Amino acid sequence: MTNTRPLDHFKDKPLFTPGPLTTSRTIKQAMLRDLGSRDTEFIGVVRAIRRKLLAIAGAGPDYEAVLMQGSGTFALESVVSSTVPPNGKILVVVNGAYGKRIGQIASVLKIGVVPLVFPESQPAEPSQVAAALERDPAITHVVMVHCETTTGILNPIREVGAIARQFNCSYFVDAMSSFGAVPINLAECSIDYLVSSANKCVEGVPGFAFVLARREALLATEGFARSLSLDLLAQWKGLERDGQFRFTPPTHALLAFHQALLELEQEGGVEARAARYRGNYETLLRGMRKLGFEEYLPEKLQSYIISSFRYPDVPQFIFEEFYGLLNEKGYVIYPGKVSDGNCFRIGHIGRIFPEDVRDLLGAIAATLDEMGIDLSRRAEACMAIK
Amino acid sequence: MTNTRPLDHFKDKPLFTPGPLTTSRTIKQAMLRDLGSRDTEFIGVVRAIRRKLLAIAGAGPDYEAVLMQGSGTFALESVVSSTVPPNGKILVVVNGAYGKRIGQIASVLKIGVVPLVFPESQPAEPSQVAAALERDPAITHVVMVHCETTTGILNPIREVGAIARQFNCSYFVDAMSSFGAVPINLAECSIDYLVSSANKCVEGVPGFAFVLARREALLATEGFARSLSLDLLAQWKGLERDGQFRFTPPTHALLAFHQALLELEQEGGVEARAARYRGNYETLLRGMRKLGFEEYLPEKLQSYIISSFRYPDVPQFIFEEFYGLLNEKGYVIYPGKVSDGNCFRIGHIGRIFPEDVRDLLGAIAATLDEMGIDLSRRAEACMAIK
Repeated sequence: MTNTRPLDHFKDKPLFTPGPLTTSRTIKQAMLRDLGSRDTEFIGVVRAIRRKLLAIAGAGPDYEAVLMQGSGTFALESVVSSTVPPNGKILVVVNGAYGKRIGQIASVLKIGVVPLVFPESQPAEPSQVAAALERDPAITHVVMVHCETTTGILNPIREVGAIARQFNCSYFVDAMSSFGAVPINLAECSIDYLVSSANKCVEGVPGFAFVLARREALLATEGFARSLSLDLLAQWKGLERDGQFRFTPPTHALLAFHQALLELEQEGGVEARAARYRGNYETLLRGMRKLGFEEYLPEKLQSYIISSFRYPDVPQFIFEEFYGLLNEKGYVIYPGKVSDGNCFRIGHIGRIFPEDVRDLLGAIAATLDEMGIDLSRRAEACMAIK
Repeated sequence: MTNTRPLDHFKDKPLFTPGPLTTSRTIKQAMLRDLGSRDTEFIGVVRAIRRKLLAIAGAGPDYEAVLMQGSGTFALESVVSSTVPPNGKILVVVNGAYGKRIGQIASVLKIGVVPLVFPESQPAEPSQVAAALERDPAITHVVMVHCETTTGILNPIREVGAIARQFNCSYFVDAMSSFGAVPINLAECSIDYLVSSANKCVEGVPGFAFVLARREALLATEGFARSLSLDLLAQWKGLERDGQFRFTPPTHALLAFHQALLELEQEGGVEARAARYRGNYETLLRGMRKLGFEEYLPEKLQSYIISSFRYPDVPQFIFEEFYGLLNEKGYVIYPGKVSDGNCFRIGHIGRIFPEDVRDLLGAIAATLDEMGIDLSRRAEACMAIK
């Protein structure tokens, strides 16, 4: 897997989204097989996936990898519903839609939840997490999103982890959009549970998600599960017992993910992938500024995963039209999700390259022309400042 | 899609299992694409899948199709956890491991459950269902498995449906292994909720399951959900609102399933598929009897989905060895699950043909030879009776 764009790697429109993402041809081709779920070869694939996931997270022998059918949200719910004791209480750090969703999961499960809300344009402030834990000694769990996909902001998982440990709380990180592209060390961040999904920065296809869990924490959750399907401890025990899933696994998505992990290694691991994504991001940011767009987050807070851009303040800009015209040209971007401003999002992850981003920028320029939008004055002002 | 075996349709060992199954090459090739989950083409695929599923079940305009990420068990749990009111109580008809599992789901969810247990070698007896409902007027829901994959037995879903209706109970059928191969009419069977999975008789790949629901019943479940991920009503509302899943869908598995539904139509629909599976089953039964094996169920109770065979009563027969030798020859069968006898299972579903079953029978004969097992006397006795 070289780090330059293959000539024919798009059969479909490139996806500049938070996922499902564009994946390599070879990753998809790995799905051209039907393996039985009890097949020795398949069980070996599952074992290799679990081992490689732990290696990516720099995990020592005290961590375990549990795979869970469904989307990332299913795995998030599996952690909340399986690891919080009957009288547990969760502090959920919220600075975007995905933090809020974890709070919703807890509410539906009738688990006590204390939201600690920050503006969507600001990372979580560790001292405020400490203050919240100080105020409410009943809190047993701290949950935070690493890269909040609403904006692309990165939260300080290491600092908050240290505080969670100081207050003897379990610590659960939603690393959906960052795992595989932003280096994370589980132990150094005091993480008990980390969740991510097959179709994010490892560049697999959707169908399952995974939980990296500190074994001692996981083993202490016996009897807490509020669901049969999403029972995290039972799922782990099943995988340990005979290498099999308790319930039918998405065999094809697992074969693709195994190939995706091999290709991540071939690319040079998390650091190399981070470099490619950073190249995508920098190309995008420079190009969008030149076109007159303004990013939602200050540059120092922006990750290289996904960017939010404000709608230009001109009456001709109608997002649905902009999206549709780009789509007709073969480029898929994503609607915004911030609650305090009109934004759209462009992802820089998946099997895309700076050349693809440049093509996208060309398509955006052409689309603005078609819509009769001229942002050149704003672009000049913007470039003069930055 | 002709109804004869293509020459090169196996890249892998044929799977004589309850699933994941062998699927056609073209179904797998449909996954060689990356579509965005908000893409117009993808939304059209999801819409077509939902429409075609209802058509297979002969559903009128009062039914809805809801797709759910995860394995079949996830969809079963979504119905139990989303449609039973806080004070609801479920009568679960049990004559095998899969009926029992639905009871386990309810127990974990702390929903009242009354098991009505029959021997694994007997279909449910409708009069006993009526008697159970007579005895306990607190029961609000009746649940039964259609084809109990433990043995391959078919339960009388129409008769039990009439009784559920008579007692004003909601009626939920687990048609995991039968849907697409055994004709089912939702209204005629008084079914409120039917569950099946992508990787069963429609011959798609695993990654999601589906619920066919009577709209009026579904709409009356507002506020009952005990999970965010598995909230059936919310999932339906999401699909209705904009054609999208609430959470990341397994886009590739959905593309494969769409192709699988087209190929089901091309084969001639449920009746034609039933005929092929029946051919597989009859070839297997005749051949296994000739080899001296004895089926677990009497022939009149046996479906053409999957068969259970008793271990031959000779000391040389060790199932793990038998399984392993067959596997080395390229044939995958399945362990048994009946609780009152030593059995193994052979599935007749998926993209397999009577010729494949004959090849399997040859491999079984060779394996018996290798194991030094001679069942010819038993075979003669058996053939004389039947």
